[in-house]
Amino acid sequence: MTTVDNGVNVQALLDAREALKGAPEAAQFTWRASSTWQNGVHSTTTVQNFFGLGQEQAHKSETVFDADHPEVFAAQDNGITPIEYLLVGLASCLTAGVASVAQNRGIQLRSVRATVEGQHDIRGILGVDSDVRNGFNDVKVTFAIDADASEQEIAALVAQSQKRSAVFDALTNPTNVTVEVA
Amino acid sequence: MTTVDNGVNVQALLDAREALKGAPEAAQFTWRASSTWQNGVHSTTTVQNFFGLGQEQAHKSETVFDADHPEVFAAQDNGITPIEYLLVGLASCLTAGVASVAQNRGIQLRSVRATVEGQHDIRGILGVDSDVRNGFNDVKVTFAIDADASEQEIAALVAQSQKRSAVFDALTNPTNVTVEVA
Repeated sequence: MTTVDNGVNVQALLDAREALKGAPEAAQFTWRASSTWQNGVHSTTTVQNFFGLGQEQAHKSETVFDADHPEVFAAQDNGITPIEYLLVGLASCLTAGVASVAQNRGIQLRSVRATVEGQHDIRGILGVDSDVRNGFNDVKVTFAIDADASEQEIAALVAQSQKRSAVFDALTNPTNVTVEVA
Repeated sequence: MTTVDNGVNVQALLDAREALKGAPEAAQFTWRASSTWQNGVHSTTTVQNFFGLGQEQAHKSETVFDADHPEVFAAQDNGITPIEYLLVGLASCLTAGVASVAQNRGIQLRSVRATVEGQHDIRGILGVDSDVRNGFNDVKVTFAIDADASEQEIAALVAQSQKRSAVFDALTNPTNVTVEVA
Protein backbone atom coordinates (compact mmCIF):
# COMPACT_ATOMS: atom_id res chain seq x y z
CA MET A 1 0.00 0.00 0.00
CA THR A 2 1.33 3.40 -0.97
CA THR A 3 0.48 6.74 0.57
CA VAL A 4 -0.23 9.65 -1.73
CA ASP A 5 1.72 12.72 -0.62
CA ASN A 6 1.68 15.90 -2.69
CA GLY A 7 2.62 17.97 0.36
CA VAL A 8 -0.85 19.45 0.76
CA ASN A 9 -2.50 19.24 4.17
CA VAL A 10 -5.98 18.50 2.84
CA GLN A 11 -7.33 17.58 6.26
CA ALA A 12 -6.51 21.07 7.55
CA LEU A 13 -8.35 22.58 4.57
CA LEU A 14 -11.38 20.34 5.12
CA ASP A 15 -11.34 21.25 8.82
CA ALA A 16 -11.16 24.96 7.88
CA ARG A 17 -14.13 24.49 5.59
CA GLU A 18 -16.16 23.01 8.42
CA ALA A 19 -15.05 25.67 10.90
CA LEU A 20 -15.84 28.56 8.55
CA LYS A 21 -19.34 27.28 7.86
CA GLY A 22 -20.30 28.58 11.27
CA ALA A 23 -17.97 31.59 11.31
CA PRO A 24 -18.32 33.53 8.05
CA GLU A 25 -16.67 36.62 9.61
CA ALA A 26 -13.41 34.67 10.08
CA ALA A 27 -13.39 33.97 6.33
CA GLN A 28 -13.12 37.67 5.44
CA PHE A 29 -9.56 38.29 4.32
CA THR A 30 -7.88 41.52 3.23
CA TRP A 31 -4.78 41.15 1.06
CA ARG A 32 -2.48 44.15 0.71
CA ALA A 33 0.30 45.50 -1.47
CA SER A 34 2.04 48.86 -1.42
CA SER A 35 3.87 50.40 -4.40
CA THR A 36 6.49 53.10 -4.32
CA TRP A 37 7.38 54.94 -7.51
CA GLN A 38 11.11 54.84 -8.25
CA ASN A 39 11.68 56.60 -11.58
CA GLY A 40 10.08 56.47 -15.00
CA VAL A 41 7.63 53.56 -15.01
CA HIS A 42 9.73 51.62 -12.49
CA SER A 43 8.13 50.92 -9.12
CA THR A 44 8.76 48.57 -6.22
CA THR A 45 5.84 46.85 -4.50
CA THR A 46 6.05 45.28 -1.07
CA VAL A 47 3.80 42.55 0.29
CA GLN A 48 3.83 41.19 3.82
CA ASN A 49 0.80 41.91 6.01
CA PHE A 50 -2.75 40.76 5.55
CA PHE A 51 -5.89 40.35 7.64
CA GLY A 52 -7.80 37.12 8.14
CA LEU A 53 -9.30 34.74 10.69
CA GLY A 54 -10.34 37.85 12.58
CA GLN A 55 -6.90 39.33 13.14
CA GLU A 56 -3.80 40.82 11.55
CA GLN A 57 -1.52 38.22 9.93
CA ALA A 58 1.84 38.38 8.20
CA HIS A 59 3.91 36.41 5.77
CA LYS A 60 7.18 35.15 7.30
CA SER A 61 9.04 37.83 5.39
CA GLU A 62 8.41 40.94 3.32
CA THR A 63 8.77 40.43 -0.43
CA VAL A 64 9.62 43.26 -2.82
CA PHE A 65 8.64 43.14 -6.49
CA ASP A 66 10.07 45.36 -9.22
CA ALA A 67 7.87 46.35 -12.13
CA ASP A 68 8.97 48.30 -15.17
CA HIS A 69 8.54 48.36 -18.91
CA PRO A 70 10.96 46.63 -21.28
CA GLU A 71 13.58 48.43 -23.34
CA VAL A 72 11.40 48.22 -26.49
CA PHE A 73 9.05 50.63 -24.67
CA ALA A 74 11.96 53.05 -24.11
CA ALA A 75 12.17 52.02 -20.43
CA GLN A 76 14.85 50.44 -18.26
CA ASP A 77 13.47 46.87 -17.84
CA ASN A 78 14.15 46.82 -14.09
CA GLY A 79 11.43 44.22 -13.67
CA ILE A 80 8.59 42.48 -15.45
CA THR A 81 5.61 44.51 -16.63
CA PRO A 82 2.56 44.94 -14.38
CA ILE A 83 0.36 42.88 -16.69
CA GLU A 84 2.79 39.95 -16.52
CA TYR A 85 2.17 39.79 -12.76
CA LEU A 86 -1.39 38.72 -13.60
CA LEU A 87 -0.01 35.73 -15.47
CA VAL A 88 2.24 34.82 -12.53
CA GLY A 89 -0.82 34.86 -10.28
CA LEU A 90 -2.93 32.82 -12.70
CA ALA A 91 -0.31 30.13 -13.34
CA SER A 92 0.55 29.71 -9.67
CA CYS A 93 -3.09 29.66 -8.55
CA LEU A 94 -4.13 26.94 -10.99
CA THR A 95 -0.99 24.92 -10.20
CA ALA A 96 -1.69 25.08 -6.45
CA GLY A 97 -5.24 24.00 -7.16
CA VAL A 98 -4.10 20.97 -9.13
CA ALA A 99 -1.92 19.87 -6.19
CA SER A 100 -4.73 20.35 -3.67
CA VAL A 101 -7.37 18.55 -5.72
CA ALA A 102 -4.96 15.71 -6.52
CA GLN A 103 -4.24 15.25 -2.82
CA ASN A 104 -7.94 15.25 -2.01
CA ARG A 105 -8.58 12.63 -4.71
CA GLY A 106 -5.64 10.41 -3.75
CA ILE A 107 -3.68 11.05 -6.94
CA GLN A 108 0.12 11.17 -6.65
CA LEU A 109 1.64 13.94 -8.76
CA ARG A 110 5.16 13.63 -10.17
CA SER A 111 5.37 16.93 -12.05
CA VAL A 112 3.10 19.81 -12.97
CA ARG A 113 3.97 22.59 -15.35
CA ALA A 114 1.65 25.39 -16.46
CA THR A 115 2.49 27.64 -19.40
CA VAL A 116 0.45 30.81 -19.71
CA GLU A 117 0.16 33.15 -22.66
CA GLY A 118 -1.74 36.44 -22.64
CA GLN A 119 -2.61 38.18 -25.90
CA HIS A 120 -2.40 41.93 -25.60
CA ASP A 121 -3.02 44.57 -28.25
CA ILE A 122 -1.02 47.52 -26.94
CA ARG A 123 -2.91 50.00 -29.13
CA GLY A 124 -5.35 50.22 -26.21
CA ILE A 125 -2.95 51.49 -23.55
CA LEU A 126 -1.20 53.75 -26.07
CA GLY A 127 -4.47 55.39 -27.03
CA VAL A 128 -4.19 54.48 -30.72
CA ASP A 129 -7.71 53.11 -31.00
CA SER A 130 -10.42 53.53 -28.37
CA ASP A 131 -12.12 50.33 -29.58
CA VAL A 132 -9.12 48.28 -28.41
CA ARG A 133 -9.29 47.29 -24.76
CA ASN A 134 -6.40 48.02 -22.39
CA GLY A 135 -6.12 44.54 -20.92
CA PHE A 136 -5.60 41.09 -22.39
CA ASN A 137 -7.70 40.02 -25.37
CA ASP A 138 -7.51 36.47 -24.13
CA VAL A 139 -5.36 34.20 -22.02
CA LYS A 140 -4.44 30.56 -22.56
CA VAL A 141 -3.10 28.16 -19.94
CA THR A 142 -1.58 24.83 -20.97
CA PHE A 143 -0.81 22.16 -18.37
CA ALA A 144 1.69 19.32 -18.67
CA ILE A 145 1.07 16.91 -15.79
CA ASP A 146 2.79 13.66 -14.93
CA ALA A 147 0.78 11.73 -12.32
CA ASP A 148 -0.46 8.30 -11.32
CA ALA A 149 -3.76 8.91 -13.07
CA SER A 150 -5.60 8.47 -16.35
CA GLU A 151 -5.86 11.25 -18.91
CA GLN A 152 -9.47 11.67 -17.90
CA GLU A 153 -8.59 11.96 -14.21
CA ILE A 154 -5.91 14.54 -15.02
CA ALA A 155 -8.35 16.56 -17.10
CA ALA A 156 -10.79 16.45 -14.18
CA LEU A 157 -8.08 17.70 -11.77
CA VAL A 158 -7.47 20.71 -13.97
CA ALA A 159 -11.18 21.40 -14.36
CA GLN A 160 -11.75 21.32 -10.60
CA SER A 161 -8.73 23.55 -9.97
CA GLN A 162 -10.17 26.09 -12.41
CA LYS A 163 -13.56 25.90 -10.69
CA ARG A 164 -12.06 26.83 -7.29
CA SER A 165 -9.36 29.25 -8.45
CA ALA A 166 -9.37 32.73 -6.95
CA VAL A 167 -7.28 34.19 -9.78
CA PHE A 168 -9.18 32.45 -12.59
CA ASP A 169 -12.36 34.02 -11.21
CA ALA A 170 -10.70 37.43 -10.76
CA LEU A 171 -9.64 37.49 -14.41
CA THR A 172 -12.73 35.97 -16.04
CA ASN A 173 -15.30 37.95 -14.03
CA PRO A 174 -15.44 41.68 -13.27
CA THR A 175 -14.39 43.07 -9.89
CA ASN A 176 -15.16 46.52 -8.57
CA VAL A 177 -11.91 48.52 -8.19
CA THR A 178 -12.05 51.92 -6.50
CA VAL A 179 -9.14 54.33 -6.98
CA GLU A 180 -8.76 57.31 -4.65
CA VAL A 181 -6.26 60.00 -3.76
CA ALA A 182 -5.59 60.30 -0.02
CA MET B 1 13.03 77.72 -16.31
CA THR B 2 12.84 74.17 -14.96
CA THR B 3 12.53 70.99 -16.94
CA VAL B 4 10.10 68.36 -15.77
CA ASP B 5 11.76 64.96 -15.62
CA ASN B 6 9.94 61.94 -14.20
CA GLY B 7 12.20 59.59 -16.14
CA VAL B 8 9.55 58.67 -18.68
CA ASN B 9 10.43 58.96 -22.37
CA VAL B 10 7.06 60.33 -23.43
CA GLN B 11 8.27 61.25 -26.90
CA ALA B 12 9.12 57.61 -27.62
CA LEU B 13 5.62 56.58 -26.50
CA LEU B 14 4.00 59.27 -28.66
CA ASP B 15 6.14 58.13 -31.59
CA ALA B 16 5.10 54.52 -30.97
CA ARG B 17 1.47 55.59 -30.96
CA GLU B 18 1.89 57.22 -34.37
CA ALA B 19 3.84 54.27 -35.78
CA LEU B 20 1.32 51.68 -34.57
CA LYS B 21 -1.61 53.56 -36.14
CA GLY B 22 -0.45 52.24 -39.48
CA ALA B 23 0.88 48.90 -38.24
CA PRO B 24 -1.70 47.21 -35.98
CA GLU B 25 0.03 43.82 -36.35
CA ALA B 26 3.13 45.19 -34.62
CA ALA B 27 0.96 46.09 -31.62
CA GLN B 28 0.03 42.44 -30.97
CA PHE B 29 1.98 41.33 -27.92
CA THR B 30 2.07 37.93 -26.23
CA TRP B 31 3.18 37.91 -22.59
CA ARG B 32 4.23 34.60 -21.07
CA ALA B 33 4.81 32.94 -17.72
CA SER B 34 5.64 29.35 -16.85
CA SER B 35 4.95 27.72 -13.49
CA THR B 36 6.56 24.62 -12.07
CA TRP B 37 4.99 22.83 -9.12
CA GLN B 38 7.41 22.36 -6.23
CA ASN B 39 5.51 20.73 -3.37
CA GLY B 40 2.18 21.33 -1.69
CA VAL B 41 0.77 24.59 -3.02
CA HIS B 42 4.26 26.02 -3.58
CA SER B 43 5.23 26.78 -7.18
CA THR B 44 7.88 28.81 -8.93
CA THR B 45 6.99 30.88 -11.98
CA THR B 46 9.52 32.20 -14.47
CA VAL B 47 9.07 35.18 -16.77
CA GLN B 48 11.49 36.30 -19.45
CA ASN B 49 10.40 35.97 -23.07
CA PHE B 50 7.57 37.71 -24.84
CA PHE B 51 6.50 38.50 -28.39
CA GLY B 52 5.87 41.96 -29.78
CA LEU B 53 6.67 44.41 -32.57
CA GLY B 54 6.54 41.41 -34.90
CA GLN B 55 9.28 39.36 -33.26
CA GLU B 56 10.47 37.48 -30.19
CA GLN B 57 11.65 39.75 -27.38
CA ALA B 58 13.13 39.14 -23.96
CA HIS B 59 13.54 40.91 -20.66
CA LYS B 60 17.20 41.50 -19.76
CA SER B 61 17.01 38.68 -17.26
CA GLU B 62 14.75 35.85 -16.20
CA THR B 63 12.79 36.51 -13.01
CA VAL B 64 11.52 33.71 -10.78
CA PHE B 65 8.52 34.21 -8.49
CA ASP B 66 7.58 31.95 -5.58
CA ALA B 67 3.92 31.50 -4.72
CA ASP B 68 2.57 29.56 -1.77
CA HIS B 69 -0.08 29.78 0.91
CA PRO B 70 0.59 31.23 4.35
CA GLU B 71 1.04 29.13 7.48
CA VAL B 72 -2.55 29.87 8.61
CA PHE B 73 -3.63 27.79 5.60
CA ALA B 74 -1.42 24.91 6.82
CA ALA B 75 1.17 25.66 4.10
CA GLN B 76 4.83 26.66 4.15
CA ASP B 77 4.62 30.38 3.17
CA ASN B 78 7.46 30.09 0.67
CA GLY B 79 6.06 33.09 -1.19
CA ILE B 80 3.04 35.37 -1.45
CA THR B 81 -0.31 33.93 -2.50
CA PRO B 82 -1.34 33.86 -6.15
CA ILE B 83 -4.12 36.39 -5.59
CA GLU B 84 -1.66 38.87 -4.05
CA TYR B 85 0.20 38.90 -7.38
CA LEU B 86 -2.88 40.58 -8.86
CA LEU B 87 -2.48 43.43 -6.36
CA VAL B 88 1.21 43.78 -7.24
CA GLY B 89 0.22 44.11 -10.89
CA LEU B 90 -2.54 46.61 -10.17
CA ALA B 91 -0.49 48.87 -7.90
CA SER B 92 2.50 48.93 -10.23
CA CYS B 93 0.40 49.52 -13.35
CA LEU B 94 -1.46 52.50 -11.91
CA THR B 95 1.78 53.93 -10.48
CA ALA B 96 3.52 53.67 -13.87
CA GLY B 97 0.53 55.36 -15.43
CA VAL B 98 0.69 58.27 -13.01
CA ALA B 99 4.36 58.82 -13.91
CA SER B 100 3.68 58.67 -17.65
CA VAL B 101 0.68 60.98 -17.56
CA ALA B 102 2.50 63.44 -15.28
CA GLN B 103 5.41 63.57 -17.71
CA ASN B 104 3.06 64.14 -20.63
CA ARG B 105 1.32 66.97 -18.74
CA GLY B 106 4.53 68.61 -17.55
CA ILE B 107 3.98 67.84 -13.88
CA GLN B 108 7.05 67.09 -11.77
CA LEU B 109 6.49 64.21 -9.35
CA ARG B 110 8.38 64.02 -6.05
CA SER B 111 6.83 60.87 -4.63
CA VAL B 112 4.05 58.44 -5.48
CA ARG B 113 2.80 55.70 -3.23
CA ALA B 114 -0.13 53.38 -3.97
CA THR B 115 -1.67 51.20 -1.27
CA VAL B 116 -3.95 48.43 -2.46
CA GLU B 117 -6.37 46.32 -0.46
CA GLY B 118 -8.35 43.41 -1.85
CA GLN B 119 -11.31 42.02 0.10
CA HIS B 120 -11.59 38.27 -0.24
CA ASP B 121 -14.12 35.91 1.32
CA ILE B 122 -12.25 32.61 1.35
CA ARG B 123 -15.46 30.60 1.76
CA GLY B 124 -15.57 30.63 -2.04
CA ILE B 125 -12.30 28.82 -2.72
CA LEU B 126 -12.86 26.46 0.23
CA GLY B 127 -16.23 25.43 -1.16
CA VAL B 128 -18.14 26.48 1.97
CA ASP B 129 -20.80 28.42 0.10
CA SER B 130 -21.35 28.30 -3.66
CA ASP B 131 -22.88 31.79 -3.58
CA VAL B 132 -19.52 33.26 -2.52
CA ARG B 133 -17.23 34.05 -5.45
CA ASN B 134 -13.66 32.73 -5.58
CA GLY B 135 -11.97 36.04 -6.37
CA PHE B 136 -11.95 39.44 -4.69
CA ASN B 137 -15.22 41.00 -3.60
CA ASP B 138 -13.72 44.40 -4.24
CA VAL B 139 -10.40 46.17 -4.43
CA LYS B 140 -9.44 49.63 -3.24
CA VAL B 141 -6.40 51.63 -4.32
CA THR B 142 -5.32 54.73 -2.38
CA PHE B 143 -2.69 57.08 -3.79
CA ALA B 144 -0.48 59.48 -1.85
CA ILE B 145 1.21 61.79 -4.35
CA ASP B 146 3.61 64.67 -3.78
CA ALA B 147 3.98 66.74 -6.96
CA ASP B 148 4.19 70.26 -8.31
CA ALA B 149 0.49 70.32 -9.03
CA SER B 150 -2.88 71.23 -7.53
CA GLU B 151 -5.11 68.65 -5.85
CA GLN B 152 -7.34 68.79 -8.91
CA GLU B 153 -4.42 68.15 -11.28
CA ILE B 154 -3.29 65.22 -9.13
CA ALA B 155 -6.78 63.74 -9.12
CA ALA B 156 -6.84 64.10 -12.91
CA LEU B 157 -3.47 62.28 -13.22
CA VAL B 158 -4.84 59.34 -11.27
CA ALA B 159 -8.05 59.29 -13.29
CA GLN B 160 -6.16 59.25 -16.58
CA SER B 161 -3.81 56.52 -15.35
CA GLN B 162 -6.84 54.39 -14.48
CA LYS B 163 -8.35 55.04 -17.91
CA ARG B 164 -5.27 53.67 -19.69
CA SER B 165 -4.29 50.93 -17.28
CA ALA B 166 -3.93 47.41 -18.66
CA VAL B 167 -4.31 45.80 -15.23
CA PHE B 168 -7.23 47.97 -14.10
CA ASP B 169 -9.08 46.87 -17.23
CA ALA B 170 -8.09 43.23 -16.75
CA LEU B 171 -9.54 43.20 -13.24
CA THR B 172 -12.66 45.28 -13.79
CA ASN B 173 -13.73 43.63 -17.05
CA PRO B 174 -13.98 39.95 -17.95
CA THR B 175 -11.29 38.22 -20.01
CA ASN B 176 -11.64 34.87 -21.73
CA VAL B 177 -9.22 32.36 -20.14
CA THR B 178 -8.84 28.92 -21.73
CA VAL B 179 -7.29 26.11 -19.69
CA GLU B 180 -6.05 22.97 -21.47
CA VAL B 181 -4.01 19.86 -20.75
CA ALA B 182 -1.26 19.24 -23.30
